Parts: sequence; structure tokens; C-alpha cells
Amino acid sequence: MSDILVSKNKLRAKIYWWLERPDREAWGPKLLEVALVVLIILNVGAVILETVDSIYQSWEGAFNVFEGISLCIFILEYLLRLWIVPENQDSPSRISWMRSPIAIIDLLAILPALLYLFIPIDLRILRTFRMLRLLKLTRYSPALGMLLAVFEEEAGAFFAGFFILMLMLIFAASGAWLAEHTVQPNAFGSIPQAMWWAVATLTTVGYGDVTPITVAGKIFGALITVIGIGMAALPAGIIASGLNEQIHRRRSSLQREFRKALEDGIICQQEEEDIEALRKQLGLSRRTADHIREAVHSEKETKIGATCQHCGKPFKAP
Amino acid sequence: MSDILVSKNKLRAKIYWWLERPDREAWGPKLLEVALVVLIILNVGAVILETVDSIYQSWEGAFNVFEGISLCIFILEYLLRLWIVPENQDSPSRISWMRSPIAIIDLLAILPALLYLFIPIDLRILRTFRMLRLLKLTRYSPALGMLLAVFEEEAGAFFAGFFILMLMLIFAASGAWLAEHTVQPNAFGSIPQAMWWAVATLTTVGYGDVTPITVAGKIFGALITVIGIGMAALPAGIIASGLNEQIHRRRSSLQREFRKALEDGIICQQEEEDIEALRKQLGLSRRTADHIREAVHSEKETKIGATCQHCGKPFKAP
Amino acid sequence: MSDILVSKNKLRAKIYWWLERPDREAWGPKLLEVALVVLIILNVGAVILETVDSIYQSWEGAFNVFEGISLCIFILEYLLRLWIVPENQDSPSRISWMRSPIAIIDLLAILPALLYLFIPIDLRILRTFRMLRLLKLTRYSPALGMLLAVFEEEAGAFFAGFFILMLMLIFAASGAWLAEHTVQPNAFGSIPQAMWWAVATLTTVGYGDVTPITVAGKIFGALITVIGIGMAALPAGIIASGLNEQIHRRRSSLQREFRKALEDGIICQQEEEDIEALRKQLGLSRRTADHIREAVHSEKETKIGATCQHCGKPFKAP
Amino acid sequence: MSDILVSKNKLRAKIYWWLERPDREAWGPKLLEVALVVLIILNVGAVILETVDSIYQSWEGAFNVFEGISLCIFILEYLLRLWIVPENQDSPSRISWMRSPIAIIDLLAILPALLYLFIPIDLRILRTFRMLRLLKLTRYSPALGMLLAVFEEEAGAFFAGFFILMLMLIFAASGAWLAEHTVQPNAFGSIPQAMWWAVATLTTVGYGDVTPITVAGKIFGALITVIGIGMAALPAGIIASGLNEQIHRRRSSLQREFRKALEDGIICQQEEEDIEALRKQLGLSRRTADHIREAVHSEKETKIGATCQHCGKPFKAP
Repeated sequence: MSDILVSKNKLRAKIYWWLERPDREAWGPKLLEVALVVLIILNVGAVILETVDSIYQSWEGAFNVFEGISLCIFILEYLLRLWIVPENQDSPSRISWMRSPIAIIDLLAILPALLYLFIPIDLRILRTFRMLRLLKLTRYSPALGMLLAVFEEEAGAFFAGFFILMLMLIFAASGAWLAEHTVQPNAFGSIPQAMWWAVATLTTVGYGDVTPITVAGKIFGALITVIGIGMAALPAGIIASGLNEQIHRRRSSLQREFRKALEDGIICQQEEEDIEALRKQLGLSRRTADHIREAVHSEKETKIGATCQHCGKPFKAP
Repeated sequence: MSDILVSKNKLRAKIYWWLERPDREAWGPKLLEVALVVLIILNVGAVILETVDSIYQSWEGAFNVFEGISLCIFILEYLLRLWIVPENQDSPSRISWMRSPIAIIDLLAILPALLYLFIPIDLRILRTFRMLRLLKLTRYSPALGMLLAVFEEEAGAFFAGFFILMLMLIFAASGAWLAEHTVQPNAFGSIPQAMWWAVATLTTVGYGDVTPITVAGKIFGALITVIGIGMAALPAGIIASGLNEQIHRRRSSLQREFRKALEDGIICQQEEEDIEALRKQLGLSRRTADHIREAVHSEKETKIGATCQHCGKPFKAP
Repeated sequence: MSDILVSKNKLRAKIYWWLERPDREAWGPKLLEVALVVLIILNVGAVILETVDSIYQSWEGAFNVFEGISLCIFILEYLLRLWIVPENQDSPSRISWMRSPIAIIDLLAILPALLYLFIPIDLRILRTFRMLRLLKLTRYSPALGMLLAVFEEEAGAFFAGFFILMLMLIFAASGAWLAEHTVQPNAFGSIPQAMWWAVATLTTVGYGDVTPITVAGKIFGALITVIGIGMAALPAGIIASGLNEQIHRRRSSLQREFRKALEDGIICQQEEEDIEALRKQLGLSRRTADHIREAVHSEKETKIGATCQHCGKPFKAP
Repeated sequence: MSDILVSKNKLRAKIYWWLERPDREAWGPKLLEVALVVLIILNVGAVILETVDSIYQSWEGAFNVFEGISLCIFILEYLLRLWIVPENQDSPSRISWMRSPIAIIDLLAILPALLYLFIPIDLRILRTFRMLRLLKLTRYSPALGMLLAVFEEEAGAFFAGFFILMLMLIFAASGAWLAEHTVQPNAFGSIPQAMWWAVATLTTVGYGDVTPITVAGKIFGALITVIGIGMAALPAGIIASGLNEQIHRRRSSLQREFRKALEDGIICQQEEEDIEALRKQLGLSRRTADHIREAVHSEKETKIGATCQHCGKPFKAP
């Protein structure tokens, strides 16, 4: 009995090492990761190809088999990840893991297909929801994680930007409706209808399927476009600027770590590994880390070479 | 008589507490705020739905009743806010309150409907102006307040950007008129007409309802588009960069407050409340405040832990 | 004789005071400035309205008279500005003034009309060139001057951006020509023809008058569009970021001036005027100046209140 | 024999001086550089003009002769650059030079034409590949080199941006296919077909050749457009912000050099030359260098002029 528990725990630790251990360098887990990424991409490719009638009709069987196998793998992956949660010292319980965004994405990747077993909904709509498996790639991209952190942090400014865009859209649609609804009752017959033109215009897409034709409508449309282009670009500007801030902050984090490591004049093996782990966690490139290392070193040297402006004596080498 | 005055003052203080007291935590005023926001959104929704003929014809009575009730509530709100002005120590007089942007927005939300009682103008146009009630939401969004502050502050650069855009628009329209007015007299017959094409092109909307067809017109159009895209994006860039600056400045403000509070080594309850009030006033997120708190703490620790490079002794704890 | 010289010099100084003296507060020169700005705007308005046939036919005489008067005023203005050059201590000679960008703009505003007196060219084209008078507004907008400084300074990065855009345009046009020239010989018959589609696509204008219809063309078009949008936005990003840098640098300039003025603890009247003159020259808003003043003051206070970390004694008040 | 070796080495050094020596001021190599740039531009111009049938038919012979001569020059240039590699102390071997991006571009400029000698492929496609010669201009533009460095450095964030764009494109195409495939089987019959609409919409190109016509499709299209515009602009924002960072870093580099040179109070001739070489290598403008020089000088003066706040004595001049 205790033997089983021990071997169970050993197995769980083994699986944790394969699936979740950070900074694993062994080729086994690396290959597994690549295989999972390839499987996700193949799944999305399959969803896309299934919508092409000629391909679907010739290969329906193959698609179904592939979907079955994929579903089994993703279910197994979800259950294993749930099982090995206690192996990670930082995450407290299985319930809290299940509520983490990354676990919800894993669940969304298998849920639609499972639902079908119980509730018979339209297979066509269902197939499209398999697209959600694409989100599973988030786990493997630190840079994407950085972008999501930016969204989370700049949420306030971001929603303010969207709110202004909404305001502009509603005003644009109201004005266009006022000017055009008698002349073009099909395209501008009501504010919700005019909204289609407003969205296409303020986002600068400008399909041209619907355009104002009265003089008043054209003048109003020109004014609202000129005023509106700045507004529509706001969310993009906010994200870009937030991303800049985020990268800056993460670089500072790494820089602090470098400085701390260099306090005794040398970066030992353990410190190198800590810095490398932090670098990966922050999603910074090796090149960026090298730039920071260089800057910290040169800063160190300046300090050593400099003399105190009070007493004229050189600073002590640390 | 004096009793009435006292009870009147008590009532005014009570209403002030319900409507305007900052940082109120009681559920009553919070619920009232939510109710007012919902009422504004319902109003805008009603204006939008009224323009759909089929809906308007079936529900005309309900729309009129809803408009009547809403108008009464907004008038009451305006009068109450005007009455309680003296309760706020910072705002000097009722007249100056009435001239504040937020009070003008409140007035604009009721004025069009009131005007109708005296001057019989077209109800259709009037209904659209009820859209202005949307602006009342400004009061409830600190992030939006931040964006408005950016507009105010970067007004100089912003108008310079718009001025350049105007220049580009006039030059583009002149050139297109020159090249196309003989071939397409309907679309490019005069500079004001060619302006419609210029706006659609330089803002990159590009409806395609009007395009140059002569070789000269196409060459000119291509050149002005390539040169112009940078100009049209300028206002957006200016706002985004100003917003960045604004957020940075507000963060510095909060940081200063944190540092001041931490000077004696600990942040007491009163200081916490002051910082929280400042945070809300500045429209910063709780997350941002936590980041700043962390940075100030770690900065503090560095200082305490560091030793003077001259004498080797640790710096005194403040 | 000497009397005439003295009175001539007096007159020149008087005109200099009216036309060019910086920071003049008298209402006379201010009114003159406003009048000149209004005249420029009326001129541009006249050029625009003249292209509307119905308006031109009814008011041809009035337009001609107005043009004549305007031309005389602009010629007089140019000659006067040329005459008073020696009054300005900073500008060395009349020749160098004539080669300054602002003088060239003034000349361009009168040259086309003068040319007509000697060379009989098409009046229609000539009329459009009167649009150049719009550039005369540059003189009156410090913020616009700031933008021009940014263009000058970021010229390197800006041309790099344009160069990449050119590369993208040529590659896009080549690819589209390769894919589409057999199917759509009218729209994609040669690379120069395909360039019209490339410009409309990469600048995201997207008229839709010409689009790829083959599968290869659509795939290539989609790829080049996705890759290209980042490139086309580069010049705008460079300008916006350069503007940010420029504003930052100018604020630092003003801050230095404030700090220097505050060194003796107080800002005297003369210093206030110097700061105000610098603020106008830098094109910064009064609000920005107030922010800087506040920051410098608070920085001063911090320094006075702080104690030396070496000896524990407070810093000397400067 | 030894004589030949010496003269060979002398010749190689001579050619190195003509082709590759940095900061050469002699007019000979400068003229050669200009000639090569002009040749590249003429080549690209020839490729463009050859696609215009009328021009090609009249001038076919001239085009062929020009292509032959150009090809010979480019082959000669490549071989010479390969031969003189050992002259440059920094680059280790010919093999590593051949693998450098700039050498690969040089090879790409001649390879397609050489291939034709051995494998008879369609001349038309081949001609277009001569467009790759445009990339040879990279060598002559330091600012372009800066942009490429930004791409390299921000690759992580950049691919994250593209990955999000891919996600948006796939989701947009899936949704549009779901809503429209029964009504518009030609335009939205499968997800790959709907991708054409998705690309045109999310990049805000908006040709309008394909637009949703069902209510569900329009609502979905409007939502995805509003959400998507921020995403599509991300790569541009990342590049612009990275470019900003890059310029900042390069300016800091030059500033450090200036400070080091000024440590002894004066910038000697040798130091001036070093700074100038660094400036060119970093691709910074002379104007920027002057700004930095000024700032470093004024910083120096402040330090010299300042007095210690502890003892009141002036800091020692270094």
C-alpha cells in the first residue's frame, strides 16, 4: 500500500518533470512540448480545411479520426496537469489551479467536443469552437504572456479608449442617420443600421459598400472622420505605450538582479542560473540580457574608477 | 423658523453625502450611482431604438413615458447638485459650478427636451440631441477624466497636428481637382467636392466611391497618400504619447505620496486613506498603486541596507 | 539729409516693432497679426470657392479685386520685412534672411501671381498655386515650428522609414504584377500600373477599385498586407516618438531655466520675463510651464528638508 | 614570386581601401560608392520599365545589354569583396563573411541571373527576382541598419504581435464563415476564402470587394473590427517603440564617448575622430551629436561650478 503511494508520488513527480518543470534542458520534455505545439497547430489547420467542402468530402473519415485522437490527448493532458498540481510548491490547490486563466483555456479546448456527447447541437458551430485550441499556445510564448500582462495592467486606460470609441461611434451613427435616412433608407434607415457605416469609417476600414451621398452627410462624415481617426487609434497607442512600460520594468527587474549578483564583484554559477531563470520568466530575449549585463558591468567600472568628489580619494572596490 | 433652517441644512448635507461625497463606501450612494449610470445607458438605448421604425411604431407610448420620467430625474438631479454646491468646501459658488464642464454637460442633457416646451422644433432632430446624455458618463470614469486632461494639456501639439492635416487636405484636394476636374466633373468638379476624396484618402478610410482615373491623378494621389499617412496619424500619436506622459506623472505623484508616508518607516491608517483617496482622484488602478508601493519599499530597503562608500558605515535608518 | 536718415531709421524701428518684435504686448501689433492671419485664411477660402463654377461666374470681379488687393498687401509685407532685417540683432544680412525658409515661403506666396505678369501661363494652374499662401501661417504657430524641428531632426530615421516603404511598394507591385498581369491586364499590366494597387493597399487606404482576383494574387496580397502594415506606419511612429523627445527636451530646457532662477531662492520679475520669453520661443503651453515650476519648487523643498546621509546634518539652504 | 605576393597584397589593400574602408574621405571611393548606388537604382528602374510592354518591345536589346553589364559588375563586386575579406581585422574568415546577411544579399543579387545559365526557368519570373538587388542599398544606409537592428532585437515582442494578429485573423475568418457561408458561398464559402475578407478588414485596408451582408455577419464584423484595430497596429507600435529605445541607447553610447573624451577637459583631434567614427557607425545625425556634445559640456560646467553642500567648497576640477 505504502509502496503504491511512493511509486504513485514518484510517477507524479516524473510527469511534473515532463510537463511543467521550468527550465528543463533534457531533450525529452522539450520534444514533448514541440509535439504538443505541433498538435495544436495541426488541429487548427484541420478545422480550417474541414470548411473547404471538396477537402472535407474526400477526407471526412481521416478528419474524424484525427479529432478523436486529438481530443483524447488534450483530455489526458488536462487530467495529468490537474493531477500534478501539488508537485508545484507555488500553486496552492487544485481548485485554484482550475480557476487560473491557463487552465480555463485548456478546459475550453476540450469542452465543446465533450458537450456534443451530451447535448446534440449543430456540429458545424461546434467545429468552429475547436478554434479555441489556438489559445493553448499562450502557455508556450513568454512574449504573449507579456502582452496579456499589458492588457491586464492598462485595462483602465484601455476601456477609457474603448468608451471614447463607443461615444464616437454612437455620435457618428446618429449624425449619419439624421443626414441620410430620407435619401438612403436601406443603408441609413435607423441608427443601428448607420452603425455599420460608422464602424467601417471610424476604424478607417472604409469598405465603401455604404457611403453618404447628400452634401450634409458628406460634410458630417468628413468632419467625424478627421476627428475620429485619433480616437480609433487610441487603444493601439495605449497598448503600445503600456508594452513599452512593461518591457522597461522587466528590464529593470533583471538589471536589479544583475547588480545584486555583481555586488561581490563576480557572477557565480548559481547566480547565472538564477538570472537565466528570471530572464525566461520575464520573457526577455538573451540579447536584451546581454545588453543589461554589459551596462551593469560598465557602471561598476565607472564606480571603481571614480574618485569621491568630497575627499578626492577613489571609492573602495567592493 | 431656525428649526426649518437646521433641518434644511441637514437635508442638504444628507443629499450631498448621497450624491457627491468622494470615497463613500456605504451601499446606498453606490447603488444610486449605479442606478444613474444604468438610466443614462437606457436613455441612449432608447434613442437608438426609436430610430428603428418598426420598434418605434409599436412602443411609441412607452418611449414617451420613459423619456418623461428620465427628463424629470435628470432635472431633479441637476437642481439637487446645484443646491448642494455650498456643502463642498472646495467649490466656491453656484455660479462657478454652473460654468464647470461637468455642470454644462448635465445641463445639455436636459436642455434640448426643455427647449421643445417653448420652441416647437422638429422632434426628430431633438431626439438625436438626447444622445448628449451619454456625456454624463464622464463623471463616473476617472480614466476618461485622464484622457480629457491629456487633450487639454497637449492642445498645442494636437492643434498643430490638425493644422498640418488641414494643410494636407487642402493641398490634396487642390491637386486632385487640377488633375481630374475635366474627366470627372461630378466627383472632382471643385476643390470642396474633391475634399471628400481627400478626407477619405488621407485618413486611410478609402471608400473607393471616388478615385482618380487619370494617370496624373493616380500619380499625384499615390504621392500624397504616401506622404500623408504619417500626417494623419499624428494626432493619434500625440494623444498616445501625451497619455503616456500623463500616466507617468500621476504615478510619480502617487510615488511621492508613498515616499512621504514611508519616511517614518511605516504607513499608518490615516496615510493609507490619504493615498487611497489620491489614487482614486488620479484615476490609477489598484494594481499600479501596488507596483509603486513595492518599488518604494524596495528602494527604502536598499537605502537602509547600503553602506557609505566613504566611511564604510551603513546609512542611518531614517 | 541726416534728418531724413534719422527719421528713416526711426520709421524702420517702428515698423520692426509692428511686424517682428517678439513678445509685443501692445494691442496694435497684435491686431495687425490677427489681420494678416485672417487675410491668409480668406485668400485660401477664395481659391477654394473660385473652383466652384457657379460661385466663380457670379463673383468673378470681386475675386479679382480681392486677389489684387491681397497681392499688394503680401508684396508690401515682403518688402517691409526685407527692409527691417537690420533691426534684428541676431539675423546678419538681408541675403541670408532671403534664404531662410520663412522668407522663401513669403516669396512663394507672391511669386506665382507676379510670374503671370511676365509669362502668360494657364491661369487655372496659377490659381491653385496661391494655395502656397497657406504656408505663411507657419510664422504664427510655435507648435507647428516644433513639428518642423522634429522633421528636421528625425530626418535620418524618417527617410529610412520611407525607404523601407518604397522597398515594400516595389516588392508588392512586382508580386501583384506577376500573379495578376495575365488575368487583369488593365489593372496589373505592368509594375507601374500595379503600383496604384500597392500604394492603396500598403497605406491601408484600400479603395477597392483594383483588387487581386486570382488565388495566388490574393495569397500574396494578404501576406504583403499583413507584413506591410507595420512598415507603412513607421514614419508616423518615428514622428510621434521624435515629437515626444522634442517636447521632453524643451521641457528640460525650461526646467533648467527655472532651476537657475530659483538658485537664490526666489524668482524675480526679470527672471519671470526671461522664462516667459523662453517658454514662448519653445512653443510650450502655460500649463506645462506651471507643472515644471511646481516640480522645481517641490524638488527645492525636498533638498532643503533632507539631511546628509554621511554626517546626518541638514543640507544648507542655498 | 615573393614580388608577386607583395604586389598582390598591395593590390588587395588598395581594393579594400576603395571598397570597404570606413570613413574614407577621398573622392575616389566616394564616387565609386555613388556609382554603385546609381547602378542599383538603374537596375530596379530597368526591371520596372521592362514590364511595360510597349517600352520592352522597343528597347529589348538595350535592356539585355544593360542587364549583362550590370550582372558582370555585381559578380566582380562580389568576388572582390570576398577576396579582400582578410584585409579587415575584425572579420575572421571568408566563410563567415559569406554567411553574413550583407554577403547573402550580394549573392541574391546575382544568383537568379546565374541560375538561368544552368536551369532554363521562365525568364519573366526571373526578371522580377532581380528586384532583390534593391536590398543591396542596405549597405549604404546606416539608418536602415538601425531599423534592421530593431527588428532583430524586438523579434520576441514582434512575433507575439504577429501571433495575436494571426489569432485574430483565424477567429475573424471563422466567425465570418459561420455567419455568411450560406448566403455568400462564393466569398465566404470556406475559412481560407473568408481569410481574404479578414485580412482586408483587420489591417483596415477594407477593399469592399467582399463584405458581410447578413445582420449576424455585420454585427460580428463590426465587433471584430473594433476589437481588432488595436491588435493590427501592435507590430507597428512595437517597432516604433523599439526604434525609440534603440536611438536612445545609441545616443547614450555616444554620450559616454563624449564624457570619456572630456574627462581631461578638452576633446583632442584623435578623440574627435573616434567620436565621428562612432557616430557614423551608430547611424546618428551630426545634429544629434551636436546636441549631445552641448549637453555633456553644460553638465561638465555645472559640476565644475557647483560647490559641495557639506563643506561649501567647490568640487575639484577633474
